[in-house]
Amino acid sequence: MANGKLVLLRHGQSEWNASNQFTGWVDVDLTPQGEAEAKRGGELLKEKGIVPTVVYTSLLRRAIRTANIALDEADLLWIPVVRNWRLNERHYGALQGLNKAETKEKYGDDQFMAWRRSYDTPPPAIEEDSTYSQAHDPRYADLSEVPATECLKDVVIRFVPYFEKEILPRVLAGETVLVAAHGNSLRALVKHLDNISDADIAGLNIPTGIPLVYELDSEGKVLNPGGTYLDPEAAAAGAAAVAAQGAKK
Amino acid sequence: MANGKLVLLRHGQSEWNASNQFTGWVDVDLTPQGEAEAKRGGELLKEKGIVPTVVYTSLLRRAIRTANIALDEADLLWIPVVRNWRLNERHYGALQGLNKAETKEKYGDDQFMAWRRSYDTPPPAIEEDSTYSQAHDPRYADLSEVPATECLKDVVIRFVPYFEKEILPRVLAGETVLVAAHGNSLRALVKHLDNISDADIAGLNIPTGIPLVYELDSEGKVLNPGGTYLDPEAAAAGAAAVAAQGAKK
Repeated sequence: MANGKLVLLRHGQSEWNASNQFTGWVDVDLTPQGEAEAKRGGELLKEKGIVPTVVYTSLLRRAIRTANIALDEADLLWIPVVRNWRLNERHYGALQGLNKAETKEKYGDDQFMAWRRSYDTPPPAIEEDSTYSQAHDPRYADLSEVPATECLKDVVIRFVPYFEKEILPRVLAGETVLVAAHGNSLRALVKHLDNISDADIAGLNIPTGIPLVYELDSEGKVLNPGGTYLDPEAAAAGAAAVAAQGAKK
Repeated sequence: MANGKLVLLRHGQSEWNASNQFTGWVDVDLTPQGEAEAKRGGELLKEKGIVPTVVYTSLLRRAIRTANIALDEADLLWIPVVRNWRLNERHYGALQGLNKAETKEKYGDDQFMAWRRSYDTPPPAIEEDSTYSQAHDPRYADLSEVPATECLKDVVIRFVPYFEKEILPRVLAGETVLVAAHGNSLRALVKHLDNISDADIAGLNIPTGIPLVYELDSEGKVLNPGGTYLDPEAAAAGAAAVAAQGAKK
């Protein structure tokens, strides 16, 4: 039996990526550039002969539409679909909706970087009655408690056990599983796959729209540590661009 | 508990609807008009306050994209998705790819109408090596035998038991189930729901892009025989247009 594959795809540019706002669980759409990135992601799958047998998405439209556009391009719209909130972006708490550059200016570099990149410091909780709270969003009606903020550690805690229970067994069975998700939910997963320390994960940035393939042996061991981007040059440029966020106005 | 609902949505105009060719299992795309119909379907769901809790689709892109576009419009992209070949359009056998008007001219009105509308006369089987055969399509790799032709009765036999086992229980549990499918798979289902005779089903045409809502009591009895179109005037016009197919060149 062939080894299973895990294909990670971070959604393309969203409206709030473009306007440099913290997004988190706010359900903003892709921009035309984000749609083009998703299409390119699908082309790369096709060019490299990667054929997902199932797709997992978050409950957020920017990840769902990225999956739909990429799979359309790869002529794989028909594969089974699973959606789960555990793949959602990190909840950004009271920062959701705020401009990143203004936040940095207001709170200073250290606080800004702590909220963005420390492993276990969540931003302040969002008020339940905020426009940008998801406390009453029907898609989360089954959760015992909708998050009001999260640090990366919280995302690891809610996503990795789901990955191990629901997704990994399919990869171990030889499937090629596409995971269409977000910068921080994918960082949480990569931290786990590559056994990255709490400190070192701060420096890891995942570019948008470029499929990142992990090959796993039948015991779940990663055969290509760090994974393999289907377009390595574009991935390097994209990761640098993510790291520079917050600098721009 | 509120009664469950079943919402049937026939895909909008496809490329081969536009060119008047028999389509069946050939995986043609929507036209821009078909995309607009799907969008209108989503608007109608939203306007009428119909909120599907799950969507079932066939494995054909024209139904999948109709569901995606409608759910995007209704802001429900995040609901669970189930895809199954049993919702596919009727396999049109050796007629797949042929022009409807030319077929009518060549074989005569009686044979043409028998193939299109008789309950139990399938068209000739398609050759396995035809461009338009699905014998080697990977999406049907799990089937013990990929159909080479089907009559409406065959569709009833492959779809209604699946409906009763997988879809109906969710409706009985109070869910609102969206079924995004095809002219003949939906005719097969409506025949069952409304207990229409083998002869009378020939006269039933389902328009594209207009959600048709059946309300079921807790025992599965249809409370509104014939269902309720969310835009009855457009539905009447659309059904007449479907009935007129084959006349145009």
